[in-house]
Amino acid sequence: MLEELKMRVYEANMLLPKYGLVTFTWGNVSEIDRERGLVAIKPSGVEYEKLSWEDIVIMDLEGRRVEGKYNPSTDTPTHLELYKAFPRIGGVVHTHSSWATSWAQAGRSIPCYGTTHADYIYGEVPCARCLTEEELKQYEKNTGLLIAEEFKDRDYEAVPAVLCKNHGPFSWGRDGFEAVHNAVVLEEVAKMAARCEQINPRVQPAPQALQDKHYFRKHGAGAYYGQGNG
Amino acid sequence: MLEELKMRVYEANMLLPKYGLVTFTWGNVSEIDRERGLVAIKPSGVEYEKLSWEDIVIMDLEGRRVEGKYNPSTDTPTHLELYKAFPRIGGVVHTHSSWATSWAQAGRSIPCYGTTHADYIYGEVPCARCLTEEELKQYEKNTGLLIAEEFKDRDYEAVPAVLCKNHGPFSWGRDGFEAVHNAVVLEEVAKMAARCEQINPRVQPAPQALQDKHYFRKHGAGAYYGQGNG
Amino acid sequence: MLEELKMRVYEANMLLPKYGLVTFTWGNVSEIDRERGLVAIKPSGVEYEKLSWEDIVIMDLEGRRVEGKYNPSTDTPTHLELYKAFPRIGGVVHTHSSWATSWAQAGRSIPCYGTTHADYIYGEVPCARCLTEEELKQYEKNTGLLIAEEFKDRDYEAVPAVLCKNHGPFSWGRDGFEAVHNAVVLEEVAKMAARCEQINPRVQPAPQALQDKHYFRKHGAGAYYGQGNG
Amino acid sequence: MLEELKMRVYEANMLLPKYGLVTFTWGNVSEIDRERGLVAIKPSGVEYEKLSWEDIVIMDLEGRRVEGKYNPSTDTPTHLELYKAFPRIGGVVHTHSSWATSWAQAGRSIPCYGTTHADYIYGEVPCARCLTEEELKQYEKNTGLLIAEEFKDRDYEAVPAVLCKNHGPFSWGRDGFEAVHNAVVLEEVAKMAARCEQINPRVQPAPQALQDKHYFRKHGAGAYYGQGNG
Repeated sequence: MLEELKMRVYEANMLLPKYGLVTFTWGNVSEIDRERGLVAIKPSGVEYEKLSWEDIVIMDLEGRRVEGKYNPSTDTPTHLELYKAFPRIGGVVHTHSSWATSWAQAGRSIPCYGTTHADYIYGEVPCARCLTEEELKQYEKNTGLLIAEEFKDRDYEAVPAVLCKNHGPFSWGRDGFEAVHNAVVLEEVAKMAARCEQINPRVQPAPQALQDKHYFRKHGAGAYYGQGNG
Repeated sequence: MLEELKMRVYEANMLLPKYGLVTFTWGNVSEIDRERGLVAIKPSGVEYEKLSWEDIVIMDLEGRRVEGKYNPSTDTPTHLELYKAFPRIGGVVHTHSSWATSWAQAGRSIPCYGTTHADYIYGEVPCARCLTEEELKQYEKNTGLLIAEEFKDRDYEAVPAVLCKNHGPFSWGRDGFEAVHNAVVLEEVAKMAARCEQINPRVQPAPQALQDKHYFRKHGAGAYYGQGNG
Repeated sequence: MLEELKMRVYEANMLLPKYGLVTFTWGNVSEIDRERGLVAIKPSGVEYEKLSWEDIVIMDLEGRRVEGKYNPSTDTPTHLELYKAFPRIGGVVHTHSSWATSWAQAGRSIPCYGTTHADYIYGEVPCARCLTEEELKQYEKNTGLLIAEEFKDRDYEAVPAVLCKNHGPFSWGRDGFEAVHNAVVLEEVAKMAARCEQINPRVQPAPQALQDKHYFRKHGAGAYYGQGNG
Repeated sequence: MLEELKMRVYEANMLLPKYGLVTFTWGNVSEIDRERGLVAIKPSGVEYEKLSWEDIVIMDLEGRRVEGKYNPSTDTPTHLELYKAFPRIGGVVHTHSSWATSWAQAGRSIPCYGTTHADYIYGEVPCARCLTEEELKQYEKNTGLLIAEEFKDRDYEAVPAVLCKNHGPFSWGRDGFEAVHNAVVLEEVAKMAARCEQINPRVQPAPQALQDKHYFRKHGAGAYYGQGNG
């Protein structure tokens, strides 16, 4: 059964270059098998063109490698903390996609300027602070803990993405594919928010009622977008 | 005969990813058969890669599904209102194309800065206001009514596109293909207008005489562009 | 022999979509046979995907069609005036390429900010004024005359391109292929000049000595770039 | 054995169009054989589409052609000076890639705004001044000497790239492939730095501790990124 998990995670990883979200090896997707407490993730520094499903590494939640000949992504401890903190997610994505990373480098949360954003993300995409010098000693683990802290008073299902200051974005979803989907949405939203501020430097976020309308058109009991399969 | 209509609408929809106007399922094209009062439109939330002509949904002007196993695009009520308000159009397009949506999010009409714009659109592309909280209760229908209201004193054939504030663009034409053509023009015009303002923040719209020259070179009795087939 | 000319002009026209310089039919290339006084040019409004070499139209310098079933590009009178005014050019290109058109819409000449520009264009790319309402009556012909006027005190071989305010760029060269080459250079130069001003709003043109060095490394008696074939 | 060197340099050169770093012939890669004191480099002005591995030119460090029917890249003297000044590099790349060149034209060093930059380049990418009129007499050689001067107090292995004011970027690495890799990183970093300043005009460089963490995660004795092959 780990084979199927590895194949899924391989497929989800290969969507990152397909959607133009990665240069070289700058990104990774993981998925969790909640029942067994195992996480499948891309190996560190392996090129997408050379990746095969058998290269996917299996980790337990304590960060021990269970299967696979490669070292897992260096970002693995961040993924693990997110799975611990957000019990209803099944997949996590990290990239250095260009527009989202530009916002992260700018140290700004992305305001909700329109319905493209509101359709998927309820309210702004928060930008988490930098780690302190002390926290940097366990950099990847503490990045995960900081994101969890950032979402203490937020609904991680309604806001499935975050920016890490001076670093880049993480996103998540019910599985690896939804996490990638949200990474694509985030990049598009980040691009349009930057351009929109260029076109109108005094632009304000979209009215709350419009944000509510679009978000709940697609999510929750009253949703009516799509074919009713969720 | 509905087969032919469905095939046309399928082909027109497939032009949206071809021209880079859609991410995922964020767009739709419809066409009307005026004689029978039937509208063919893309199903809601179906991926372009999986779409076939048989998935196209047939609606009547009251919003009842006449044929098709899928739910129609959630934007269908907007399309229907546009067909009612603009009697000489045959096709409607909605996208979240990046530059046009950035202007919509910025809440600004697109000034006519040059002949690329003037060749297709006579004067600015208007940006319609947001709906009120009351109007949001019938969001898609009222979006159509608001656009119609916006064109009360405009010529919808000379200005075949509109921006909806905090949302995105709609365009139209004599059929679905012309509506897509206008969506491509709009995106290109939106991109160049933003860049042009960046290059010269004090830029003014093109002189009216030049706008007239270019628009009427392509439209109306004195047109001389192309091969005389319209 | 007109066959060969048509084939060359067809090939040169097909480079415009290859290099991303045209949307739809917004561009055209011509070439002149100086001995016979004949100009070959793209037909008006014919899509690039459907264009064949036999569709190319042959005109004389007085604007009479000599061969071809289609109407020539509406911009033909501009091309003809350029051939009359610039005796050593053999090809002319007009496009609405995005960055060059954005500068034209902004009404600004493109300063020479670096060696990419200086390698091909000696000094700024001038932006010609709009035509007056009177001049617009013979729009295309007067566009050509205005460009010629703009180059009264310039060397049209050292500056093989111009912007027409609120419209777009024209470029030229010893033949149609060099004219297309210069159109690509112009678009790249226009893009980098806009970004460079964004990065440093107080940027100054490149020192004259550096401009001279690069231009004369590639042009004139002391040139040493390439393989010595010109 | 020169065959193998030529083939490597050919392959490395062909990566430039693959990664979108060159228009026409505006770029070149070289590699050095330190034992024999020979440098292999792209011929001047030869199109990438027509380049074959046999066209690669072999030079000695005094700038004499040892093998090859073509003239070497006009930038060859710059490459040679870099090999003399930086004894541990094995490959050099020059391009006019759009974003890096825009920074070079703007005359600004690229600050380190995030971990994408810090992963590969320790601190800012410096922008070297223009050459004086006197220095321009031996333009290409003096460009190399000026870069060497710029790195007198810098670690050229930790900062594997430079911008030449009003010109463009050079990058280097242990071989031609790493030099190309660094050219891709530089272009991505230049793009995101420009966008990041647009999003937040008051942005500050990333904290030094974060820069250190990321750089030393990938470089030096404590590195733990990748599979331990360097």
